[in-house]
Amino acid sequence: MSRPRVVIAGAGFAGLTCARALKRAPVDVLLVDRNNYHLFTPLLYQVASALLDPGEIARPVRQLIRPLHNADFLLANVTGADLEQRRLLTDHGPLSYDYLVLATGSRSDYFGKASLAHHAFGLKELDEGLAVRNRVLQRFEESRWTTDREERRSLLTFVVVGGGPTGVEMAGALSELISLVLRKDYRDLDLELVRVILLEAAGMLLGTFEAPLREAARRSLEKKGVEVLFNARVEDVTAGSLRLADGHEIFASTVIWTAGVRASDIGSTLGLAVGRQARVEVMPTLQAPGHPEVFVIGDLAGAVDGDTPLPMFIPVAMQEGRKVAATIRDLLRNYGATNFRFKDPGIMATIGRNSAVAQLGPVRLTGFLGWMMWLVVHLVNVISFRSRIIVLINWAWDYVFYDRPIRLIVRAGDAKND
Amino acid sequence: MSRPRVVIAGAGFAGLTCARALKRAPVDVLLVDRNNYHLFTPLLYQVASALLDPGEIARPVRQLIRPLHNADFLLANVTGADLEQRRLLTDHGPLSYDYLVLATGSRSDYFGKASLAHHAFGLKELDEGLAVRNRVLQRFEESRWTTDREERRSLLTFVVVGGGPTGVEMAGALSELISLVLRKDYRDLDLELVRVILLEAAGMLLGTFEAPLREAARRSLEKKGVEVLFNARVEDVTAGSLRLADGHEIFASTVIWTAGVRASDIGSTLGLAVGRQARVEVMPTLQAPGHPEVFVIGDLAGAVDGDTPLPMFIPVAMQEGRKVAATIRDLLRNYGATNFRFKDPGIMATIGRNSAVAQLGPVRLTGFLGWMMWLVVHLVNVISFRSRIIVLINWAWDYVFYDRPIRLIVRAGDAKND
Repeated sequence: MSRPRVVIAGAGFAGLTCARALKRAPVDVLLVDRNNYHLFTPLLYQVASALLDPGEIARPVRQLIRPLHNADFLLANVTGADLEQRRLLTDHGPLSYDYLVLATGSRSDYFGKASLAHHAFGLKELDEGLAVRNRVLQRFEESRWTTDREERRSLLTFVVVGGGPTGVEMAGALSELISLVLRKDYRDLDLELVRVILLEAAGMLLGTFEAPLREAARRSLEKKGVEVLFNARVEDVTAGSLRLADGHEIFASTVIWTAGVRASDIGSTLGLAVGRQARVEVMPTLQAPGHPEVFVIGDLAGAVDGDTPLPMFIPVAMQEGRKVAATIRDLLRNYGATNFRFKDPGIMATIGRNSAVAQLGPVRLTGFLGWMMWLVVHLVNVISFRSRIIVLINWAWDYVFYDRPIRLIVRAGDAKND
Repeated sequence: MSRPRVVIAGAGFAGLTCARALKRAPVDVLLVDRNNYHLFTPLLYQVASALLDPGEIARPVRQLIRPLHNADFLLANVTGADLEQRRLLTDHGPLSYDYLVLATGSRSDYFGKASLAHHAFGLKELDEGLAVRNRVLQRFEESRWTTDREERRSLLTFVVVGGGPTGVEMAGALSELISLVLRKDYRDLDLELVRVILLEAAGMLLGTFEAPLREAARRSLEKKGVEVLFNARVEDVTAGSLRLADGHEIFASTVIWTAGVRASDIGSTLGLAVGRQARVEVMPTLQAPGHPEVFVIGDLAGAVDGDTPLPMFIPVAMQEGRKVAATIRDLLRNYGATNFRFKDPGIMATIGRNSAVAQLGPVRLTGFLGWMMWLVVHLVNVISFRSRIIVLINWAWDYVFYDRPIRLIVRAGDAKND
């Protein structure tokens, strides 16, 4: 008799952790993803700010599952599922399963504003990180060709929308890229004309952090030259400007959008009930209602801990992945599924060189100590030993020489037509 | 009185070397290139075979010219020149010069065959290297979705056209990527179905090398599993197959073209006389006929040494760049221009792990010794200290663990529409 087949859609933190936790289970695991790599998203902003190469934050899925002798991988776009026939549907064909784990994550949400979707850069995917890097460097080069001060100012104004960790980290890194690195590339650069603006719709940055840490983050960003605007809602974006809901206009030709995220569409495609941010309303066991053989985890899942919905955080995704692996083993032994409980390891965000905020259990760190903690945690978590060395070299190089070697404008991989 | 302005079109080996050699000259130097980086082309095939990241073989031009206090850079496409008015024309506007150095290099030449240009990958530019990497990995992934043996064979057949150093190095690296690395990624891979074919129109590989080295290279390639076909001229390419002039058909869905190179179009655009491979027929002083203030160097220049035309080699480009810098200094002191003489440092090509051929003055090396020499020469010449460390780590990693960490399918930097 062949072993039960677990199909996992999505090789992000949730799906990959689940596959790994099934290593010794008597099942065959099949991971499916539209990319052939697992992306270490917490460092994506460092690709976008020309500090790291893609190879340092992305690892081939096949590499990662090599130690798992019961796991295989297929590259495909998941398009839906036939829950009755137990088949996952993809653009390459259907895949039968005994257990299905949906972990297709989330994507940028532009709240239906076409101009935003058209002009603003998301920062969720590797190609988006590279696109931001290309754009920033391109704008600096273009600014050398104009003598018009206002045009130059617009070319050199970079707006980051969203005061969560991604927005804060991106704005800090961008400001440092400019003031520490690019300034040396452009000898005649008038820093008066360069602006990095962080827009936040609410009245505070890093809403999930406690007030003193939020305040420390704001001060640190402003010290690095980032203009932080609160209560600023984006109404409309054009190629050269951005209009806020209060009518205020900012002349900027680069907008990076980190203010909205929604779960991937698979939930509604399957007719599952979805809640806020299109997240699938799962049972406390992470099973889909009515389908005990279907699990939903990671950003896609709207799991709750008591009454509070769990945030779209990596620790949530990884713990859910492990939990589902344990539940599948239990089900195979005819035990019942038990409820998921989230253990909060704390949160941290970096504002750049020598500055981060961390809220870990009873510990609160800011400034240099927070930054050291951030470095250690991220270095330990970068997935392979080799990447760890190279990331460390790049960080040390940047720290000591104020230099980011990867400031390349590369448009890659335009496939041949066939 | 302002200093004479030297405009250099092209930041490859010829143009960059020229700019560097003008460091202490009483001139202002302006480098113009369509990319913001200088590409270390000898290692491009290692990007294409998933061993190195782009950041390891490309360096920002602005970084490289930072030590040159009389040099600046502009990003633009060179579209022509007004030799009478002494202006270089670009897509961003004209640039006046007192001396012009044309060093816009060469590109793939498909000899007017539309099907080749359409389906085959060149291997001259960074984005082409990334495109080849994406394609090879994509084909392996696609092969998992078919059970048809012939379709799988076509997906897994990779044809490299051209038996010069680039073709030999690419074929060797590709074969090793498959047999040493990808084989571990695809447990059920039937190596019978995987083919790497090197096509050469003439009767020998590496025509510029002596016969024993050519023979050593061929044996080494075949030992690595590359099928070498001589007297094979490509007639036509479709999405799934390739037809030779003798009617023979090869079912292959990836064709890498290294068999034809021609100089960039600027020569004929300017109405200068061009010879073989569209190279500009320069005076022995590297000046354009009739325009003593215009120099042509690198692949673009059809310089001769005695009667023999100089090949499109990096040492030629660098020596020409240095020569023209010296000539410009001489002209500024009212000395005349003298003839360029090429000093041949020798040639080398690598066939992969533990194998290379080198022909350096009286020295002939093959096998492991040739390979050690190749390693040292290329490591010393990778431009920055940091790249050198990282390239060394990557090479050592691959050598020890048979692992290439950068096998990522990344389509990067699709610019937003605006």
